[in-house]
Amino acid sequence: MQKITKIVEVDLGDRSYPIHVGSGLLDDPELYSEQIAGGQVMVVTNETVAPLYLERVQNALAGFQCESVVLPDGERYKTLETWQSIFDALLKHRFNRQCTIVALGGGVVGDMAGYAAASYQRGINFIQVPTTLLAQVDSSVGGKTGVNHPLGKNMIGAFHQPQCVIADTDTLNTLDDRQLSAGISEVIKYGLINDPEFFLWLEQNISALLARDPEALAFAIERSCIDKANVVAADELEAGQRALLNLGHTFGHAIETGVGYGEWLHGEAVAAGMCMAARFSVALGWMSQQEEERILDLVEQSQLPTRPPESLDAERILELMAVDKKVLDGRLRLVLMHGIGKSVVTDDFDMEKLRSTLSSY
Amino acid sequence: MQKITKIVEVDLGDRSYPIHVGSGLLDDPELYSEQIAGGQVMVVTNETVAPLYLERVQNALAGFQCESVVLPDGERYKTLETWQSIFDALLKHRFNRQCTIVALGGGVVGDMAGYAAASYQRGINFIQVPTTLLAQVDSSVGGKTGVNHPLGKNMIGAFHQPQCVIADTDTLNTLDDRQLSAGISEVIKYGLINDPEFFLWLEQNISALLARDPEALAFAIERSCIDKANVVAADELEAGQRALLNLGHTFGHAIETGVGYGEWLHGEAVAAGMCMAARFSVALGWMSQQEEERILDLVEQSQLPTRPPESLDAERILELMAVDKKVLDGRLRLVLMHGIGKSVVTDDFDMEKLRSTLSSY
Repeated sequence: MQKITKIVEVDLGDRSYPIHVGSGLLDDPELYSEQIAGGQVMVVTNETVAPLYLERVQNALAGFQCESVVLPDGERYKTLETWQSIFDALLKHRFNRQCTIVALGGGVVGDMAGYAAASYQRGINFIQVPTTLLAQVDSSVGGKTGVNHPLGKNMIGAFHQPQCVIADTDTLNTLDDRQLSAGISEVIKYGLINDPEFFLWLEQNISALLARDPEALAFAIERSCIDKANVVAADELEAGQRALLNLGHTFGHAIETGVGYGEWLHGEAVAAGMCMAARFSVALGWMSQQEEERILDLVEQSQLPTRPPESLDAERILELMAVDKKVLDGRLRLVLMHGIGKSVVTDDFDMEKLRSTLSSY
Repeated sequence: MQKITKIVEVDLGDRSYPIHVGSGLLDDPELYSEQIAGGQVMVVTNETVAPLYLERVQNALAGFQCESVVLPDGERYKTLETWQSIFDALLKHRFNRQCTIVALGGGVVGDMAGYAAASYQRGINFIQVPTTLLAQVDSSVGGKTGVNHPLGKNMIGAFHQPQCVIADTDTLNTLDDRQLSAGISEVIKYGLINDPEFFLWLEQNISALLARDPEALAFAIERSCIDKANVVAADELEAGQRALLNLGHTFGHAIETGVGYGEWLHGEAVAAGMCMAARFSVALGWMSQQEEERILDLVEQSQLPTRPPESLDAERILELMAVDKKVLDGRLRLVLMHGIGKSVVTDDFDMEKLRSTLSSY
């Protein structure tokens, strides 16, 4: 059986690491053991993923002192409080500085486990085993870890690169449709940022992705990771161009905060955010209406929302965007489009036009 | 008036920074403004230091949007909970990613404020203004930040280098005698590690230091920072030789945890720890009894404890040391001495001899 189908190398000097993409990878002992230095491994997962995959991962780690901590599932538990429970487990089992954390689950588990790895004894190794499409194409690359604060998403965290990422496409078979679509939202984003060819491929293959065709999924994951890795390698600490990856996110975070964490999935909020960015780009005369329609069509076909919720009016969205961390010295910066695959980071736009675009919903 | 008397450069590539040592530096606006990029500054201090120095620092920062957060004073408040209150303040005032944290206070304030700077929006700038001798000679150099966990000291944290350190010797005039001695404990440590000449200077000048002679203090701070900077520059992330700086600390942490955080000052525990390391080094036949006596004499003259508290027996100390983060793959590593100024990091010693040395108290 051909197990590993693809390897994407994330090139970050001495913090470079591989992403393994394919089927049947989850319980391959070799993928783990080649990356684990000490004898102790803590698997961090959640109550939804644990019954599905924890035992298989533990079997693959049979050669180590393997412990686990099972977190509650959901974005609303992405808090300092939940995060603390990882340290309780590490210290209860007297884990030393050479131990490794394995993050088994979606983006929330990856963010919290990664941030715990960044912080335990000021930094230990970790391996990411993302089990959602969103986590496979997004949190796999970039080393962003962290938790939410009641006043803002991802406000507390660290940059911390994993030793490797193991993205097993089989795990997507247990993902519900809504979660799959939320992952496709980020996939579409990479096309919109700077890969118009990939966007075209997505328009042609969206049905195959929704039908979980393994080949289509593996291609989309690989291409997304390559696109993201290129942006990240050029700007690891997010000084400039990496902000392109926030396409749809400033609008999206405002939606997530406005409706309360966990009501909308992150990918859903980003999808609506990308459509809002597209409408605003058209309003500024930067992009054609035809391109906006292509974007809305693809988002809609992906079973994703194309607009903010009725409950949030323009003023409330603006207020929520003001506290977002992309605000630079008081100026709101957004990722907008000069066309599909031609995104830019800019603070050079008319706030009144933004207000009227938001009011048009 | 000659204000800046000395500048120590900590050489860490693109994370290099200066330590300004001297009198009258605390409210020099230029020392701050040359290091602050954005327009927002959060001064993090505690309830003891605030009435003494906060206003002067705020005056020096008059050109910025300057806010402050006042933490409770003491090692027992070095917790995730206190640390969180810094984020509450930053977000309440909508501080962006270009803001700067100024840590005004002793080591506890510096560790917590530095760790908040490492974590807020995944990393912002900070400036350290240490107001205790211990903080000036210890936390000034090395970028270690963090908080305690009920099961272990400094278990949660990050490496995060400041933009600069402003060590004003005048602030030591408001330090009580016990705190001054605790700082001298770390100063003695640098002599013991690898600077026998400095140890000799300390034996000759200990009375001047205890009398707070400004020249003697400035010399001791400068020399300590240089000694520490040399060790740190060679090993920023504590892979090997940096562990020398833990001389007295593995014993000392066991004492601090055993008696409860805050009962003994950190420097007091380290002083006793150095004496314990000396006695064990003599027991191993690595150091002469004469040298041990010189160490005990200097520690005693500095008004510091030379032995662990009666309440902790050998078994309890060993148990507490086992969870200390210097335990590498189950082996206890210690910093021991082949003589004054000839310290080594080693796990090559007889545990039974350690037990009998600890039982001899």
